Amino acid sequence: MANLTRAGLAERDARDPLAGFRDDFVLPDGVLYFAGNSLGALPRSAETRVAEVVAREWGQDLVRSWNAHGWIDMPLRIGAKLAPLIGAHANEVAAADSTSVNLFKLLASALKLRPGRNVILTEDLNFPTDHYIMQGLTQLLNGKCEVRTAPAEKIIEAIDKQVAVVTLTEVDYRTARMHDMAAVTRAAHENGALVLWDLSHSAGVVPVDLNGCGADLAIGCGYKYLSGGPGAPAFLFVAERLQDEIVPPLAGWMGHAAPFEFSTDYRPADGIARNLCGTPAVLSMAALEAAIDVIGKAGIAEIRRKSVEMVDTFIALVEQECGSLDLEIVTPRDTDLRGSHVALRHADGYPVMRALIARGVVGDFRAPDLMRFGIAPLTLRHTDLWDAVAILREVLEGRAWDTPEYRNRAAVT
Amino acid sequence: MANLTRAGLAERDARDPLAGFRDDFVLPDGVLYFAGNSLGALPRSAETRVAEVVAREWGQDLVRSWNAHGWIDMPLRIGAKLAPLIGAHANEVAAADSTSVNLFKLLASALKLRPGRNVILTEDLNFPTDHYIMQGLTQLLNGKCEVRTAPAEKIIEAIDKQVAVVTLTEVDYRTARMHDMAAVTRAAHENGALVLWDLSHSAGVVPVDLNGCGADLAIGCGYKYLSGGPGAPAFLFVAERLQDEIVPPLAGWMGHAAPFEFSTDYRPADGIARNLCGTPAVLSMAALEAAIDVIGKAGIAEIRRKSVEMVDTFIALVEQECGSLDLEIVTPRDTDLRGSHVALRHADGYPVMRALIARGVVGDFRAPDLMRFGIAPLTLRHTDLWDAVAILREVLEGRAWDTPEYRNRAAVT
Repeated sequence: MANLTRAGLAERDARDPLAGFRDDFVLPDGVLYFAGNSLGALPRSAETRVAEVVAREWGQDLVRSWNAHGWIDMPLRIGAKLAPLIGAHANEVAAADSTSVNLFKLLASALKLRPGRNVILTEDLNFPTDHYIMQGLTQLLNGKCEVRTAPAEKIIEAIDKQVAVVTLTEVDYRTARMHDMAAVTRAAHENGALVLWDLSHSAGVVPVDLNGCGADLAIGCGYKYLSGGPGAPAFLFVAERLQDEIVPPLAGWMGHAAPFEFSTDYRPADGIARNLCGTPAVLSMAALEAAIDVIGKAGIAEIRRKSVEMVDTFIALVEQECGSLDLEIVTPRDTDLRGSHVALRHADGYPVMRALIARGVVGDFRAPDLMRFGIAPLTLRHTDLWDAVAILREVLEGRAWDTPEYRNRAAVT
Repeated sequence: MANLTRAGLAERDARDPLAGFRDDFVLPDGVLYFAGNSLGALPRSAETRVAEVVAREWGQDLVRSWNAHGWIDMPLRIGAKLAPLIGAHANEVAAADSTSVNLFKLLASALKLRPGRNVILTEDLNFPTDHYIMQGLTQLLNGKCEVRTAPAEKIIEAIDKQVAVVTLTEVDYRTARMHDMAAVTRAAHENGALVLWDLSHSAGVVPVDLNGCGADLAIGCGYKYLSGGPGAPAFLFVAERLQDEIVPPLAGWMGHAAPFEFSTDYRPADGIARNLCGTPAVLSMAALEAAIDVIGKAGIAEIRRKSVEMVDTFIALVEQECGSLDLEIVTPRDTDLRGSHVALRHADGYPVMRALIARGVVGDFRAPDLMRFGIAPLTLRHTDLWDAVAILREVLEGRAWDTPEYRNRAAVT
């Protein structure tokens, strides 16, 4: 790559077809926001929509809003809007509960779908809460199933006839390394196992192709690249061919075939709806829906194009500006094998990140030594990359991070 | 009771120490709102607070709000505020997930706490979603446990040494009949069983005394009398003595002893926190917290005093004004044995309720023949009772309900 300049990057911003979307988000002055992979920025339409749901729908129309304003349809309506972002059909996705709760539901369902098999296979370094959910389920089932772990590169060879379900997070939360969804899914199916993908670090920024890969099950988070707000409802996917075989472990009234019949016998709804459980959190749902509308308007292919370009640029800038400053670029260079954040290793990553945040470059830190910079293409400009790396260089060159204040371990999220 | 007049009720309103709280809620013109037992009215402070969380905390302070604005503490902070309303200690309650999900968690935990016992005992007419959750859990555990049902009045004699946990909804959603929490809990404990109370129709209007009764576990809903908003987060209670024995089936990262350590081994937090699972839905939590603050300010004893008076008055008004109009008062007369709504049976309850709603009296209907009028003491005036019953009389006397439009079964929630 030729030498990068701020002017050159400003030119790219001027030509960027997605540049206008920045105005659809609230972005505070003086902040270069690289934590869109942790909490996406606020879409202006989400602010308006939540205010409307509170003031008019809840305040004025009260309980009749469940029908009059379609609250009751939110989980499936939002699911249908999410579907094109992850390669699913509209009737294969629902918004509900949290990522962890949805993972529990679908893992338990997967075990029922593969009787006689008792292994959940996952990556040793899968996202921690995914591990916790598997451990909780195993305990609950009194050892009727077990969790087998393998390193990322050994997953395929660890699949055998005992494996009921392989569950992996597509994009690694530390390095941004991406699994080959098609290859893993194929290997699982060859062995009669199901695959459950956690799309928490993919949805809204990586164009997932669940049906193209023949995936069975998936879950994901609403508050990262989807910008659905803090603790936004999560989502789940069940391939149409499996939907009516699912026996929901969390059999709540929203998944009942006729919730307003108030029968005491559980009769699961047809299709994806049986995976719903309790009453949807309408205020949080409203924000998520508005956010997904913005992302849908931008288009996931265009978002991915800009994400790839920006991650390449960020890496090139780090090499050009900070090449001798003890940073290791951990994120893969191969664009096909990575998501949308850049992880930089530095022995003093923790105080360095704190110094960056104090200077308005908001990324985050994952122990023991990784600084993460999330690239959210709808809110970041190419010049933001330049400015962030310039501040990083300054902090490193001047050892501005090397103070007791920054070294002191308070939480950086 | 002497003859009731509208003027007499207006006098009571003038003397009502809670009258001022009506101004703390948004109430639409022309509506007499008797569905506060289904979706509580909007507290003005909830509107303000949600707007602030969206605009300032999410919009401006972004990811650092998890610490800077205490989002991460919401589940336990809201739990602590809820505790005095239900007779719990501040460290025994958490706000989280939905009622159904919390019921699943605590039922599964109860079974682990009573190894060798395999029965979940419940009322045959318990709230449907409670039955569904029990059925889902039983399926998941492959028949390792079973659900035993008994009519309300036979629950105590149905408790034997096989029962791991008795689970009941304190206030019946149809009739408002209330279980004797102390007596059932005592009988369960005499047999070595645990008790799990569903407080969905109690919290915020009936002063529950969980610790006074020696209760073990409880769950409940945030959107009814608590006025926490549509699909508000629910809550759960675990008595302090049991907390560290709980093995969480939904073992998510918010219940981990050190969630930001990102260890792959689940280590449950001490105390109530281990019953948390995924990331809290912050926007919905914010509304719930504001609502609970209003209820806490009014005081649960004073709310109950007014609720009892208003339910008595409503029943007396129905007798006085509609005595000959084919209504059966289903709610118990004994104030100690009932919650805060009035259920009236009418053979054509469905079209009658639709006619009432069309005239601004918003109650609801439960098949086959019950009309429910929820009494939310912070938003209803005594004269509202008069006005509602006057409209009820008019509708019944004139058979205004007897039209094809009202008879047509569209949803009334």
